[in-house]
Formats: sequence, C-alpha cells, structure tokens
Amino acid sequence: MKKANKKVNASIIIVGNEILSGRTQDVNVSTLSKWLNELGVKVEEVRIVPDNETAIIHTVNFLRKRFNYIFTTGGIGPTHDDITSKSIAKAFKLKYGKHQEAHKILKNYYGAKNFNIGRQKMAMMPTKASLILNPSSGAPGFIVDNVYCLPGVPSILKSMLGGLNNKIKGGKKILSKTISLQTVESEIAKSLKEAQNKFKKVDIGSYPFFRLGKIGVSIVMRSTDKKKIDDCNKEIVSFVKRKKINQISKK
Amino acid sequence: MKKANKKVNASIIIVGNEILSGRTQDVNVSTLSKWLNELGVKVEEVRIVPDNETAIIHTVNFLRKRFNYIFTTGGIGPTHDDITSKSIAKAFKLKYGKHQEAHKILKNYYGAKNFNIGRQKMAMMPTKASLILNPSSGAPGFIVDNVYCLPGVPSILKSMLGGLNNKIKGGKKILSKTISLQTVESEIAKSLKEAQNKFKKVDIGSYPFFRLGKIGVSIVMRSTDKKKIDDCNKEIVSFVKRKKINQISKK
Repeated sequence: MKKANKKVNASIIIVGNEILSGRTQDVNVSTLSKWLNELGVKVEEVRIVPDNETAIIHTVNFLRKRFNYIFTTGGIGPTHDDITSKSIAKAFKLKYGKHQEAHKILKNYYGAKNFNIGRQKMAMMPTKASLILNPSSGAPGFIVDNVYCLPGVPSILKSMLGGLNNKIKGGKKILSKTISLQTVESEIAKSLKEAQNKFKKVDIGSYPFFRLGKIGVSIVMRSTDKKKIDDCNKEIVSFVKRKKINQISKK
Repeated sequence: MKKANKKVNASIIIVGNEILSGRTQDVNVSTLSKWLNELGVKVEEVRIVPDNETAIIHTVNFLRKRFNYIFTTGGIGPTHDDITSKSIAKAFKLKYGKHQEAHKILKNYYGAKNFNIGRQKMAMMPTKASLILNPSSGAPGFIVDNVYCLPGVPSILKSMLGGLNNKIKGGKKILSKTISLQTVESEIAKSLKEAQNKFKKVDIGSYPFFRLGKIGVSIVMRSTDKKKIDDCNKEIVSFVKRKKINQISKK
C-alpha cells in the first residue's frame, strides 16, 4: 500500500474519565508510540477525551482524515460507561449490533453458560468491523477503515499488538541516538542550536534529568537517516569534548 | 469571578516530542488533574502535541475559547526545542521579548556572572505576561489570559502549583467515592447500568484491576453532590450484597 520511504503518521485517542480525573495514570500512549516507532509510524498527536459520545465522535472524525492511522484505547468493555464501540459506529454512520464472529469468539471463550449480558455486550460493535484478536482475555478489539480500537487495560492492550504488526504499513523507521551529559541545559543551549541549524533533517531534543541525585541532560537525535544521525552525533560529541563536559554512560 | 456552583472546566496541552515518541512517560496530566479536581475544576480534554509552532498555536487557540482554563506543560526551557513561550505569544498576537521581571528573577537566581544566553532565553516570553513563580529552579512560568504555561519537568511543575491556588477560581468540588469488589465487570454490568440510570447526576465508572494476582473491579462514583453519591453508593452496596460479592478493603 504505502511506499517504504513515505512518512506515515498516527494519532492516539485515549478514552476515559479515569485518565482525565487523574485517578489512573495512562501508560498506553508510551506503549503504542514505542511499538509504532518500530514499525516506522510517527505518533504526531494524542487526545484524551471523556466517556462522552459527542466528544468521541468529533475527535475520531476530525483525526481520521488527518492521520494515516488512529488508535483508540478504552471503552470497549462490558459496562455502561464503555461507549467507544457505539460511538465509532456512529462516527462512521455504520450499523451497530451483534458482530457474528466476535459473538462466536466470546461465547467460545466464556462457555455458553457463563456468556451473560455484560459479556455479550462486548460483541456489540460496528457489525462489519474487522476484529483484532485478544490472546489474553478473549474480547476482541476492532478495525474500521484506519481506526483501530483497543482496550484500556495496559496488559491486555499489549498482548494484542503482536497480531497487528503485519496490518500496519509503516514508512522508514525513525532511528534515534541518545547521549547523556553531566551538565545543565543552559551550558549547551547555544551549541545545540547551532547543531540543529546545521542538521535540519535530525530532530534534536534536549531533556534535563535528575538521576541518583545527579543533574544531567539527555540529548536525543531522531531521524530516518542513520548517516545524518551519526554526523550530528559527531558534531555534538565534538563540542562536548571542547567544553570538557563528561558523558554519562547509559544503563 | 466565577460563581461557586458553576461548572468550571480545563484542558491540558502537553508539549513534547519526547512524550509522543514514548521516550518519556508523562505524569503531569495526573498531577494537574488531581490538583484541579481539588480546586473544583474538571479537566475535560488533554492534547499532546509536538514541539511544533503551528501545532501549538492551533491547539492553544482552539482550546482557549472552549475551556475556562488551559494549562500547557513543557517547552519553556533554555534550548532550541523549547518553543512554547514564542508560540503562545504568536497565538495571542502579543509581543515576544525580554520579560523585565522574569529577567530580573533569573539574573538574581543565577548571579550576573552565570547568567548566560541559554538562561536569558528563559526570560523571553510574551512581554506582558503575568509570572508563575518557581520555588525550585528559578525560571518562572507565565499566564496569558486563561492560559497557564508550566515547565515539563514533573518535580518543578509540582513545586509551582501551590502559588497558583488562589488564582484558580473553581466551581463546586467534584467529590468521589470508590468501592473495590472481588468480581469481574460482566457480573455487575447490568446492575451498574440500572444504578447509573437511577442516579443520572452521578458519574459511575467501572475499572477492572489486577492486584497481587487477584482480579477485581473498582467502582468510582463522582458528583458535586455528596448526598447523591451516598445514595448511589447505598444502591450499589445493596446489589453487591445480594450478589454475595466481596468488597475489598482499600489500602
């Protein structure tokens, strides 16, 4: 589908009042971003929205036209506050109802006797969606067009990504190199800016850290071009030596 | 300004390639949301955007008209990739330059001798912004209209919130009550839906968890009305007892 050298991007939509209230710490953004990076897909925006149909529909419809891939997490479980599946159907103006294959998977997973109304709800989705299989807890996610709907529970979400690897057509992989320095940002800001001006195709990020009581800065170089990263790295290492700044070995 | 019983909401904008790439785990959403909750302000949307001027300007200008308060985190440091301050000035069409008071604070903090170009950059912002003082590392954040710009380093951000308490005019405080049950969501989904239909002014959330190898569900009730939460809690406790489900004591 997509050429390997094309830029491929994605947006993540985290659905959940519990994230917005601060009750639950999201970790799915980081999981999805790292996984997508490996596949050559750059996450360029994340939105966290409440369990609210209008908010979900608007957000999905706005983003799905602007990014190659959309991933949603949360809201596909058995309870009343799980409204992502229905909202996605509405966003795409698709029929929402019992998905035959999902119903079969779930009935088989739980056994006919234990397949109660709550569990049956997890087979309710856009009826023509493709499924994302769930090796850890049965209930599948689903795909409509470029929108991939995953659960919110981090361990379950993680277990489902492997099955998607061959469905995502990424571009050139984004490579990165990090060097950590025993310094403060303001000491290197000028030289770093010069390096950034010289290597416009490399994204240079500067991130202060406090580790084991020591202050330092991590410089992250990101690009699809290994040669450019290496050249940029040389430039940075050279001013680091000139300034007599210690490099900190990474764990 | 705002009446105490009015609904007051906020949106958070996290600025940072490092969050989007998955390199850094954001924790500021949770910090800000909890703090705002206590002040009676409900966070209704979060956006994570790259270190990109256009993205920041569009996001700020879209959200600031739709929410009572906007909080940005990240991008106000000394390096070339710190572009939030300039972007905010552009979003508001304000003059960007040396903020006299910020410059004075920083010069005093570092001492004239160590006040290098990188550090001087941290005094560059909309020249008429109000400052948010920084008790931990000198460099102030700033306020333009309803937009509050804070740093990305979690410990520094946290240290600056206390000074903002009396600037945020919240509405009624959002109260919550949690009960944790030794069950699975699908066993209680139907009863929980009935409870939600009966208590429409209480947001009932259902969150599965895995703790010490045990599976459980936390039910969170949220409302500004304590009486309604208590009544809703009674209803839930009553069906929990009827179903012979164990409550798990919270740590």
